[in-house]
Amino acid sequence: MSDDYRSMWTDLGLDLEAHDALLGVLGNAYREIYLAQQDRPEGMGYFDFVMSEVHGLRIKELLDEKAAGRKIVGSYCVFVPEEIVLAANATLVGLCSGADFAMEEVEMLLPRNTCALIKSAFGFKIGKVCPYLESADMVVGENTCDGKKKAYESLGHMIENLYVMDLPQMKSDQGRALLKAEYDRFKAAMEVLTGVTITADALKEAIRTVNAKRAALHRLLSLRAADPTPISGLDALLANQVFFYDNPARFTASVNAICDELEKRVAQQQGVFAAGTPRILISGCPQAVPNWKLPWIIESAGAVIVGEESCVGERGTRHLTDDTGRTVDELMAAIVDRYFQVDCAIFTPNPDRLMHIKEMVGAYHADGVIHYGLQFCQPYLMEAIPVEKALEDENIPCLRIETDYGMEDAGQLKTRVEAFVELLKP
Amino acid sequence: MSDDYRSMWTDLGLDLEAHDALLGVLGNAYREIYLAQQDRPEGMGYFDFVMSEVHGLRIKELLDEKAAGRKIVGSYCVFVPEEIVLAANATLVGLCSGADFAMEEVEMLLPRNTCALIKSAFGFKIGKVCPYLESADMVVGENTCDGKKKAYESLGHMIENLYVMDLPQMKSDQGRALLKAEYDRFKAAMEVLTGVTITADALKEAIRTVNAKRAALHRLLSLRAADPTPISGLDALLANQVFFYDNPARFTASVNAICDELEKRVAQQQGVFAAGTPRILISGCPQAVPNWKLPWIIESAGAVIVGEESCVGERGTRHLTDDTGRTVDELMAAIVDRYFQVDCAIFTPNPDRLMHIKEMVGAYHADGVIHYGLQFCQPYLMEAIPVEKALEDENIPCLRIETDYGMEDAGQLKTRVEAFVELLKP
Repeated sequence: MSDDYRSMWTDLGLDLEAHDALLGVLGNAYREIYLAQQDRPEGMGYFDFVMSEVHGLRIKELLDEKAAGRKIVGSYCVFVPEEIVLAANATLVGLCSGADFAMEEVEMLLPRNTCALIKSAFGFKIGKVCPYLESADMVVGENTCDGKKKAYESLGHMIENLYVMDLPQMKSDQGRALLKAEYDRFKAAMEVLTGVTITADALKEAIRTVNAKRAALHRLLSLRAADPTPISGLDALLANQVFFYDNPARFTASVNAICDELEKRVAQQQGVFAAGTPRILISGCPQAVPNWKLPWIIESAGAVIVGEESCVGERGTRHLTDDTGRTVDELMAAIVDRYFQVDCAIFTPNPDRLMHIKEMVGAYHADGVIHYGLQFCQPYLMEAIPVEKALEDENIPCLRIETDYGMEDAGQLKTRVEAFVELLKP
Repeated sequence: MSDDYRSMWTDLGLDLEAHDALLGVLGNAYREIYLAQQDRPEGMGYFDFVMSEVHGLRIKELLDEKAAGRKIVGSYCVFVPEEIVLAANATLVGLCSGADFAMEEVEMLLPRNTCALIKSAFGFKIGKVCPYLESADMVVGENTCDGKKKAYESLGHMIENLYVMDLPQMKSDQGRALLKAEYDRFKAAMEVLTGVTITADALKEAIRTVNAKRAALHRLLSLRAADPTPISGLDALLANQVFFYDNPARFTASVNAICDELEKRVAQQQGVFAAGTPRILISGCPQAVPNWKLPWIIESAGAVIVGEESCVGERGTRHLTDDTGRTVDELMAAIVDRYFQVDCAIFTPNPDRLMHIKEMVGAYHADGVIHYGLQFCQPYLMEAIPVEKALEDENIPCLRIETDYGMEDAGQLKTRVEAFVELLKP
């Protein structure tokens, strides 16, 4: 990394020593897990570059945007509507989590049995190693699970401008009214933050920008229906992850370029794994960078991941927003409609998610489902049990995994995943 | 127990063998924990009788009510408004939890790291040992924590008539609107269940009945401000617990009779523990019958419990409902206002609870606070950390306890509580 970046990180208040250690671990993991893969599409060079500059060039770009008067908004959840942020001429970025930092200090603020993702978000703040968080003019939290809801009360003492968005728990008329009111309140907050009045034109353009990003990602993900699959699950996960970080237009163009290459691969029946390799759908909790543990174990065990039913995956991105409205009200209503479809396990009941898992099993010709639950993530761990039952009732094999960001259970997970993959072989 | 009860339990579908075992354990625990206490007020005979007949006479009364056409509604939470149930000429009872049953089967439906209270509710159903649950014409669940919210999805498959009430997570205008809409929906559901149209007169009378019950309990609880305290914390907890089970009018009259006796005790400076005994406020999760473990340990360690900041305690009962409205709408609005004040840890932020804890410390002259958290109860375990910090900032000693319904940790708890009590001695 250049000296420019070091002074940039210092200016952001990062702990350079801890941050160097993070980048070292991240770099090693990326080499061992990603670059060691065989027959990767050439277009993955884009993601390799993004990841190599994830705390460098991308942060510099954000700081340049700030210098030019643009606001940076950080979030931890797919319920924060990027459309509204963009329409206010601001930039939305996903915030760091996915690795354990400063756990001793974190566990003075949060119970030990809090899910790894929440503890990680605190660790990145306390450890001063997340340049995205330190660049953000506003951080948007949201009342999804109890864990995040209560954690934001403590995080609020550590972050200057934390905005908390309320979310419904049921898909009722009242639930929709709450989401609408909260998105209206968020729109007003964005206007105050940026000094920009959101117009129908700006909202429509923002909707189209985000839709294009989602559509490009869908195009990539849907190519995995082929056998052999033209791209590994690890690489597809990376596309799902970078979705939250990179400039939207560049992401869209780069992913579409990879898709052109993948389509040729599909036509030539060229894949990263042999045809007939057991195909697995991952369903459950989000997997944030650099939490590549489970997909790495799965694809090292002789299976290929063909889909992610996850917020970092199709749950977060599959729905597009209707862009045909002509007024701010109509377009805002379309945004509410779009996000109200997200089938997060915080909703009760949540039949759409089960339906979507089955749909994905069919569409991607998956041989089995691995349900990924972060330890102490109550909503997904609880929903995992009826999901497993419903899948097994239809003779779809399912393996429930409960894990965290540590590597202590990697051996045990490997054994369980290998046994499951054996089961899927014809 | 008489033979009548056995045939009654058989008719209810209880597992007689398991139920006998439960009553045996309950009876022994009651003798060892409650009846072994010294200098109990005579009026406690009422509670002793209620507890000895908790699965007998009280169930027979409910079945007699049912035979006369009255509906029985069961609930697990203080957000289910008894006023509305009574106004529809139905009876509300709290449902069983507080002990572990059929855990092996429960853990096939719920993750192992679900809180003991939720697992217990499932255990009572699966083990067929809760005559209240089996007597209920409708069971009302509610979206408080993630654990209960998602658990009701599974419980719904085991209970014929489960009604789920949505609840807000923030005390915003939208939050209040949601609670109002949900109470209106619940009122309509009660009218359908009972065939009774709720009138303003019935609602007013119901409000007065429930207010009288709460006022009697407050009268009892507030007498514990005296030193020596005229009643033990164990006995006061029992009053808080029986609040959920017994006939409202009888409860009110019996508690007021005990209060007459306690007032004499206070005037004569007669107490169950010597003056100057360290005084403890318990704050946190609800303690359902027969979960008497922690208060028993505390009062065996030479301290006296002077208050419960809990749903089974002042959080659940301290607010009365304004009964001055003249129309159904006005009275329903008063009910919404009353329940919207409940400072459950599911709300974010939840400053009222911290204020109330401090108020109770002052009012009851508590020397310290023991925060009682059920293992895996995220909302209270998370809130416990800032609560402890805020109390210690004001030099109020606080001990955070995390436990379940098992007795495995009793020795360790005893050691910690004894050390804490030592600390409180002058």
